[in-house]
Amino acid sequence: MKIRGLRRKAIKLRPLGIASRTGKERIVRITIYPEYADGLDGIENLDHIYVLYWMHKLEARDRETVKVHPQGDLNKPLRGVFSLRSPMRPNPIGLTRVRLLKKEGNTLLVEGLDALDGSPIIDIKSG
Amino acid sequence: MKIRGLRRKAIKLRPLGIASRTGKERIVRITIYPEYADGLDGIENLDHIYVLYWMHKLEARDRETVKVHPQGDLNKPLRGVFSLRSPMRPNPIGLTRVRLLKKEGNTLLVEGLDALDGSPIIDIKSG
Repeated sequence: MKIRGLRRKAIKLRPLGIASRTGKERIVRITIYPEYADGLDGIENLDHIYVLYWMHKLEARDRETVKVHPQGDLNKPLRGVFSLRSPMRPNPIGLTRVRLLKKEGNTLLVEGLDALDGSPIIDIKSG
Repeated sequence: MKIRGLRRKAIKLRPLGIASRTGKERIVRITIYPEYADGLDGIENLDHIYVLYWMHKLEARDRETVKVHPQGDLNKPLRGVFSLRSPMRPNPIGLTRVRLLKKEGNTLLVEGLDALDGSPIIDIKSG
């Protein structure tokens, strides 16, 4: 019963910032909220970083999905989401290793981030 | 005001499984809870996976830390946690690319995971 309680306890993440993009361009702006901005100190020396973000446009039912057709191709047999990079998964955390182009105050310009406009940023790590 | 509300809204993660290890050995067992076990289908074909876990032993004050001395070395100047892999960070998500040794039902044996015994698993992706 104790284990069961532990299992069910939700983990709470704080949104640390937000991704913004215009259209389909490869360059995305990350704005880190002022209270976390000091966490960016020294990042300007890195070429690549891991960005973790929340795939905020998924619906509740997408979090119930544990098997999908890879790339949405119905001709491909169903596979477990943990063996794929599918956005549908119980915890829709996006993870991308991106190139850091520029740091300006509390914003970063990165290349290759597949987050949507408005996706909350939940962590950044050296990559 | 709308943006402010969005910023503050906590994101809830579900623990999907748990890491277990004995001592300092390199091999760690990941047990995925039965309701998510189908998500592992096909993972046995992968050599490497990304494992995201929750660094559950950190204290509340560690989540307030945005600058640290790299590797805890006081001789090194303070740096932002987002430019490092330090466990101290506002959302203590651990991220490791590990070698998948074996899948047995709803458990995985992996090599190189730096999670502690009992760390909740929050996501697994092809790596």
